[in-house]
Amino acid sequence: MPSNTPRIGIVGARGAVGTEARSTLSQREFAADSIVCFGSARSEGTHVLYGSDSLTIQPMNSIANHELDYILCCADAQAAREVANSLHGDSTTIIDNSSAFRADPDVPLVIPEINADLLTPHTRLVANPNCSTIMMLRALDPIRRTYGIQRVSTTTYQAVSGAGRTGIEELHRLTRAYLNEQPAKSSVFPVSCAFNVFEHESAIDPETGFNGEELKMISETRKIWGLPDLSILPTCVRVPVERAHAQSVTVDLEHPACLTSIGEALRTHSIRVLEPGDPLTPHDAAGGDDVIVGRIRIDPDSQSRRVTLWICCDQIRKGAALNAIQIMECLIEQRHGSKKEHTPGVACAEEQNRKVLA
Amino acid sequence: MPSNTPRIGIVGARGAVGTEARSTLSQREFAADSIVCFGSARSEGTHVLYGSDSLTIQPMNSIANHELDYILCCADAQAAREVANSLHGDSTTIIDNSSAFRADPDVPLVIPEINADLLTPHTRLVANPNCSTIMMLRALDPIRRTYGIQRVSTTTYQAVSGAGRTGIEELHRLTRAYLNEQPAKSSVFPVSCAFNVFEHESAIDPETGFNGEELKMISETRKIWGLPDLSILPTCVRVPVERAHAQSVTVDLEHPACLTSIGEALRTHSIRVLEPGDPLTPHDAAGGDDVIVGRIRIDPDSQSRRVTLWICCDQIRKGAALNAIQIMECLIEQRHGSKKEHTPGVACAEEQNRKVLA
Repeated sequence: MPSNTPRIGIVGARGAVGTEARSTLSQREFAADSIVCFGSARSEGTHVLYGSDSLTIQPMNSIANHELDYILCCADAQAAREVANSLHGDSTTIIDNSSAFRADPDVPLVIPEINADLLTPHTRLVANPNCSTIMMLRALDPIRRTYGIQRVSTTTYQAVSGAGRTGIEELHRLTRAYLNEQPAKSSVFPVSCAFNVFEHESAIDPETGFNGEELKMISETRKIWGLPDLSILPTCVRVPVERAHAQSVTVDLEHPACLTSIGEALRTHSIRVLEPGDPLTPHDAAGGDDVIVGRIRIDPDSQSRRVTLWICCDQIRKGAALNAIQIMECLIEQRHGSKKEHTPGVACAEEQNRKVLA
Repeated sequence: MPSNTPRIGIVGARGAVGTEARSTLSQREFAADSIVCFGSARSEGTHVLYGSDSLTIQPMNSIANHELDYILCCADAQAAREVANSLHGDSTTIIDNSSAFRADPDVPLVIPEINADLLTPHTRLVANPNCSTIMMLRALDPIRRTYGIQRVSTTTYQAVSGAGRTGIEELHRLTRAYLNEQPAKSSVFPVSCAFNVFEHESAIDPETGFNGEELKMISETRKIWGLPDLSILPTCVRVPVERAHAQSVTVDLEHPACLTSIGEALRTHSIRVLEPGDPLTPHDAAGGDDVIVGRIRIDPDSQSRRVTLWICCDQIRKGAALNAIQIMECLIEQRHGSKKEHTPGVACAEEQNRKVLA
């Protein structure tokens, strides 16, 4: 049974999500017994910050030698599988940010505010959903609980940092070159991201024409909501924004809704809701924990059964690192009953769910 | 009766659309008897280029003193109304790019490839639709003719140059400042456009929450297609792109469609269609005449009755100046029967329509 001041491993601690996991844990003054950082061969032996402490990156293949209660896996799917395969026994719980285990029916895919009830004291592997799925469902779930959802369509405005730290470097490099009328080539993205928008760079399914990001949003939404036949049509697009995604989302409802009660439903579930006319941009979400919703409109042609929203969220934070940490906090609370005062919205997620479903 | 080598006035000749009108006419080697440029008091007496010629900007209030067959009005709604009020008799035809007359039931709102049949030799005032409407309907019209359209929803990625030349200047200035970590303030847009996306800056209707650009797309689409009850749900967003808009558009069809026949319908109507996987970005459309469609997908949950497209188009060119010039060319052809060899797609628009509708 892991301690309530657990020993935590962070895999991929120098990457965009790993960096955010370190700073989020540190900002939350997370009561950890120890933090051990792991990285690729390239990072091994280098140092990273945890608050004001300097930690040395340990080699990935030494992970089984460390006694860890939780591993926040902030690397790619291949690394995640290697980590999972290298561990024996049931003393460690892996919370994985990659796509490696998301589709596995035996692995819970968790957004704590929505389905923390899937976590048990015996859970040893949890998948963190894709960032676009997390922000969309976090905003839509209160609407689903209140009115029922028949169909979802979404068009995204995704920041380049979704492709990692090198995405931002490429945005800066190509933009500077463009402004200075100098030639420069893309390497992270298939086309130039300087003053340009383009289809998400994930592989395209030749049969349907959907890209990988869109297929993730479809399958993960269906799994998290337990609605295997839900109609969902995403279009995933990169925009030249450093950090925080935006989404335009439209939902067809089972029951007619009004603006006031939609706002109430969202606020009750700790979603930040802006008033009509208040501008909401990715800049407002960057670096923060909130999923923010603006521009709530009821389609006048829908007999109050179609609602469209504009959602912004820091996709590295709530869309990845923070969600994983919240999963860990839920597990610690289940195992030790220790309420985290700094995460009321999450620590009481199950309680909220019970209240709403009652 | 105007000559078939007409005398043309360009109002707002120094603005973004007026500049494009000059260069498009010149590139097409348009057979004009004379070109007279008009501008605001600020521009009066300055010079602009027409091909290699330098033309002097004439004062707006002198417009009635010039004998003009066509006026391409490339200014705001107030200026358009002043121009219309200052002219007497029926010797001049105004083709107006502003919103001043678009909703007027007596004024034809024309995209030549769609409804050139509204133009007659007696037409004296024609409204050019909003850029977002032109590009969307130009791409959707072949689909409507083939399958019928029940519902449209669209989310836009609109270039800053839609707000005029100052939009691009602001994008460059704020982006440079951001990269150099220097403070800078927005003046054209309500929020910073540097590495940011935000709701279209037009006024928000307090009742519905739709912004002005969205309301234009709704009313203009209904008027052009003659479908006053069509369900259409737009979300209009600015992105940090210099020039050319992109749109994600989804349509519910009356009859089931297949990808091959959609592609054929689009190509038949001179829409450039990209193959699946071919990247399509605003950069590909900027400076060109084409409306380009990529990412044609059939929603797998729709029984082949819902199609989604990604559309790119230079909103200053086909979305404004070129469309207005094509309207003028249609009128000249009607009045003088002179086919323009350089505009086959437009000169034969009516013929195409007859063929398709036959």
